[in-house]
Amino acid sequence: MSSSSIAALDAADPLASYRDRFQLPEGVIYLDGNSLGALPRQTADRVQAVMQHEWGTGLIRSWNSADWIGAPQRVGGKIARLVGARPHEIVVADSTSVNLSKLIMAVLTARPDRTVVLSEPGNFPTDLYMVESALATLGGARQLQLAPRDTLAEQITDNTALVLLTHVHYKTADVYDMAAITAAAHAKGALVLWDLSHSVGAVPLALNDCGADLAVGCGYKFLNGGPGAPAFLFVAERHHATLVSPLGGWMGHARPFAFVDHYEPATGISRFLCGTPPILAVAALESGVDLHLEVDMQVVLQKSRALAQLFMDQVAVRCAPYGVSLVGPPPGAPRGSHVSFRHAEGYAIMQALIARGVIGDFRAPDIMRFGLTPLYLRFTDVVQAVDVLEDVLRTESWRAPEYQVRQAVT
Amino acid sequence: MSSSSIAALDAADPLASYRDRFQLPEGVIYLDGNSLGALPRQTADRVQAVMQHEWGTGLIRSWNSADWIGAPQRVGGKIARLVGARPHEIVVADSTSVNLSKLIMAVLTARPDRTVVLSEPGNFPTDLYMVESALATLGGARQLQLAPRDTLAEQITDNTALVLLTHVHYKTADVYDMAAITAAAHAKGALVLWDLSHSVGAVPLALNDCGADLAVGCGYKFLNGGPGAPAFLFVAERHHATLVSPLGGWMGHARPFAFVDHYEPATGISRFLCGTPPILAVAALESGVDLHLEVDMQVVLQKSRALAQLFMDQVAVRCAPYGVSLVGPPPGAPRGSHVSFRHAEGYAIMQALIARGVIGDFRAPDIMRFGLTPLYLRFTDVVQAVDVLEDVLRTESWRAPEYQVRQAVT
Repeated sequence: MSSSSIAALDAADPLASYRDRFQLPEGVIYLDGNSLGALPRQTADRVQAVMQHEWGTGLIRSWNSADWIGAPQRVGGKIARLVGARPHEIVVADSTSVNLSKLIMAVLTARPDRTVVLSEPGNFPTDLYMVESALATLGGARQLQLAPRDTLAEQITDNTALVLLTHVHYKTADVYDMAAITAAAHAKGALVLWDLSHSVGAVPLALNDCGADLAVGCGYKFLNGGPGAPAFLFVAERHHATLVSPLGGWMGHARPFAFVDHYEPATGISRFLCGTPPILAVAALESGVDLHLEVDMQVVLQKSRALAQLFMDQVAVRCAPYGVSLVGPPPGAPRGSHVSFRHAEGYAIMQALIARGVIGDFRAPDIMRFGLTPLYLRFTDVVQAVDVLEDVLRTESWRAPEYQVRQAVT
Repeated sequence: MSSSSIAALDAADPLASYRDRFQLPEGVIYLDGNSLGALPRQTADRVQAVMQHEWGTGLIRSWNSADWIGAPQRVGGKIARLVGARPHEIVVADSTSVNLSKLIMAVLTARPDRTVVLSEPGNFPTDLYMVESALATLGGARQLQLAPRDTLAEQITDNTALVLLTHVHYKTADVYDMAAITAAAHAKGALVLWDLSHSVGAVPLALNDCGADLAVGCGYKFLNGGPGAPAFLFVAERHHATLVSPLGGWMGHARPFAFVDHYEPATGISRFLCGTPPILAVAALESGVDLHLEVDMQVVLQKSRALAQLFMDQVAVRCAPYGVSLVGPPPGAPRGSHVSFRHAEGYAIMQALIARGVIGDFRAPDIMRFGLTPLYLRFTDVVQAVDVLEDVLRTESWRAPEYQVRQAVT
């Protein structure tokens, strides 16, 4: 594409004004918002206000006066609008991993007659780990069964307690058909737990319309909630009475400030809270969520698809000769909002890109992953990123010894 | 005491200069640092820097360049210096409640031959709730046994898997003899899990010297880590190999960035991590911990005892005639750093105090609780607080209807 046609895409972008809502460093093309979303300008102000006014001045009074105590439900209710759920079906709490465990153990203990948790090999590791931990903790004859996605639906039986899937795959951006899988599971009496970490804020979701049972999601990726932001969990209202958290802490109690010795779970979604919510972190997450509530997720999706199409086209033409091949959905197919390519030297190539200000990430063993965040990425950024990638490949600058050194976090 | 002798106490206070290190609101005497510690001035700057520079500019690179990935162990190592543990025996993670569950379930699954968890009635509710949840989740013949503290040691048997106690009682400030209880438990082959939430930053601790096995603690009380700050957990090195977390998330994996399907716990304390650490909240906690590392906990203890003595003496003389009676350790006895009094109208009296800027809290059914934080409280503050308390009692201003209205958080 000519530079003028790229510029025309940016000029016509209905989301173009949102780029200024983020604080982005000079000289960087940031293609890792799928791992850590960029800082919304309003978030720095918001967190500062929570620290200075609510914590510093309000002190303990802010649990009531600033409604800190209602934050998990309030922010959960806002996220519900992004994912097609009802506000009383989501709370913000803990980490994605901890929330996975709550729901996995809750289902397994509620359904002792079924012994299988079904997932896919190569699911995001912590999803599988939390199942393994739950099974080791609960004991008995239960097992984790892994089936490739093309045969997964057929593997659901009347012995399947839970199907645990990541809606958008963290490496490939492959997308499950939520409605179809959910229907297949329900036909066998199984429940489905969706990990929305790479979906929420990236693609439109319709949990209720799909008949979804359970979900968890991450606050620090496409929601721009800050590093290690609190996560959320969704439990469809019809399951509120029958599922009980294995982590029944005081914030999930029916009357937390009665200070009684015996646990009695709250009646609604609040029973899935555990300890005291981390207010500074929840405030940062709420700010990121508020920003997303200003935009139409269908518009976000259209731009995401257009950015991905441009990226895939440019790489196919300019970088394929150097051994770079697309991973995941082909152009035109449904996908998440990141694009991944395979190259045997992917780690070193990514380090060389980062050194030149094009920031994506690497996923073992050979995946270069690029997040396409419609709120703060321009079409020109995509083309410039491919300019740098092509140059790194052509000059083989990735062969420099410093790019071979493994970092703690890849 | 005369006002000049009170002023002399403040003039001689070796910790007097630390008050300026905190941002305290005008017109407030803050006696609730045991529930939510005040804001250290350096914390606002520190969190702002993490947001602007590490998140905003560093973005994903900060996991390595700002050592976000090492934060749970780094801050844990600092807390270890405050509690007499070795740096590799503590990590910062999750909430106190979640950490309780990790350790309770880890012990119960590692020791299937023992069926009893022993605690005391009136322990902090979430401690008991996490045991109840763990027992309901694990099933089997296990049970929670509650014994009053004066006979508790005798109730430890060779069927006791775990003794779970809060070192400083949240209502009364009663203190357990950690070395004695630990020895009594070890004599029967039982382990002890200490909740240090009302101890850490308030009284000197010597976990290793006491032979402690396991502990958890809260970041938002005497450590001034911010509302809902992350918690920490301690596992004595000798238990690292045998205890496995029921929440085995990717951050507790031996190789988190290998992204393999199968869980393999890290070899040391890191196996008790679960999800991605909340960096903004950990930064605020680290700042509060850093402040405490500047002071000698023995000096903190001496001032805490002196503040408590003054408070108890003043209340005994001036408020006892109105039906206010001391709860917990008598003057001169070992205690935590808060003082509690009983009054049938304690709730309304506390609301009247708060309305006049003397902020303590209420704990059902009739306890008025006052935290004495040596780093930012003066002896004159204590006397002035009792001035207000005496006035509220004498004038019965607590009878005003607005002080009867129950808040969400008490």
